[in-house]
Amino acid sequence: MEIKIVKKVLEAHEKLAEEIARLLARNGVYAINIIGSPGSGKTLLLERTFEAAAADLKPGVIEGDIATTADAERLQRFGVPVVQINTGPFGGDCHLAPNLIRAALEELPLDDLKTVFVENVGNLVCPAEFNIGENEKVVVLSLAEGEDKPLKYPLAFREANAVVVNKTDLLPHLDVDLDVLRRNVAAVNAGLAVFEASAKTCDGVGSWVEYVRGRLVGR
Amino acid sequence: MEIKIVKKVLEAHEKLAEEIARLLARNGVYAINIIGSPGSGKTLLLERTFEAAAADLKPGVIEGDIATTADAERLQRFGVPVVQINTGPFGGDCHLAPNLIRAALEELPLDDLKTVFVENVGNLVCPAEFNIGENEKVVVLSLAEGEDKPLKYPLAFREANAVVVNKTDLLPHLDVDLDVLRRNVAAVNAGLAVFEASAKTCDGVGSWVEYVRGRLVGR
Repeated sequence: MEIKIVKKVLEAHEKLAEEIARLLARNGVYAINIIGSPGSGKTLLLERTFEAAAADLKPGVIEGDIATTADAERLQRFGVPVVQINTGPFGGDCHLAPNLIRAALEELPLDDLKTVFVENVGNLVCPAEFNIGENEKVVVLSLAEGEDKPLKYPLAFREANAVVVNKTDLLPHLDVDLDVLRRNVAAVNAGLAVFEASAKTCDGVGSWVEYVRGRLVGR
Repeated sequence: MEIKIVKKVLEAHEKLAEEIARLLARNGVYAINIIGSPGSGKTLLLERTFEAAAADLKPGVIEGDIATTADAERLQRFGVPVVQINTGPFGGDCHLAPNLIRAALEELPLDDLKTVFVENVGNLVCPAEFNIGENEKVVVLSLAEGEDKPLKYPLAFREANAVVVNKTDLLPHLDVDLDVLRRNVAAVNAGLAVFEASAKTCDGVGSWVEYVRGRLVGR
């Protein structure tokens, strides 16, 4: 009995995700689902991305948080449309489910957009389990989290197309070996594009922005 | 129908948690459920705690990870009994549920222990939602995660009795204001004991260890 119901929920999720993917495709919008631990620097990376290329990327944002609208406010100053989803009223959900994404997309002017960035709830585990109709998932990992994270939280790294290793400015102050981290990433997903960046200093952010730009070629 | 089943699962969880609490009380064991994001430094804090006071605390450990036994191996060298739970085979669960805790406790020599430290799966969201029969929850927050985390992930801070703000050695290299962080912690839970520490340099770890020792007085 239980299994049947769980299956039904998952099927409904998948159907919604497909619907979202069609809606995005119809509008020529490329959607990136950004996943990472609390404080990995997802919002600052988006700020830097918009500073560098908002005019080209024509982004909209779906901002997922359990509580507060702080991140949405930070992104709104770039003049990009931002929809905040607070999961607090929905049981404090640890991820963004496709029904919330679909509702949020209705609030975005898809006609005017080329990209939608979904900043998922800060959590390296659960968001990776949900397909939300996005074109790709990207992991943001703070270097301060340590070199073993791809091995300990493999699903996110398996599901993603790219990982941004953020806060590289902290490297001299951490006991983290970048070579080991790179090896651990490759061990979990050899096809993952890896960007090493500091959203704080902007070092390395350019390559990430070029990667996103590349996603829009021919669209 | 769905609601009924979910309720049943939650009730079963609560019943198991009560059973675990009774088992711990019968054996005079104090259990601390350690919750924090990936890479917040939970394992290193336990290593420092055992270096300082394993003889007095007589600890056992339940180590929760989706994958790998790396953390259990780090703790085993202190000669303390460690049970590793890998949630990978259980759908990559994002938290430790009470049924897993009860099974793990059966593998620990409770007669010989005064404390059990449960290192939960690295996740600031979901583990806070589950009572596992512990005596208290403690949050480990890495300073690198930023000063806004209590506001954005309030449940863990509300459920906990103490928070260890870890990696204070990074303070000169971060844009984090400790006063703002302290205010944010107090705004969410004014009764929370706050320890500022660097498990790396051992700075401030002593106060945390004294706090744990204090929990055992008269037991």
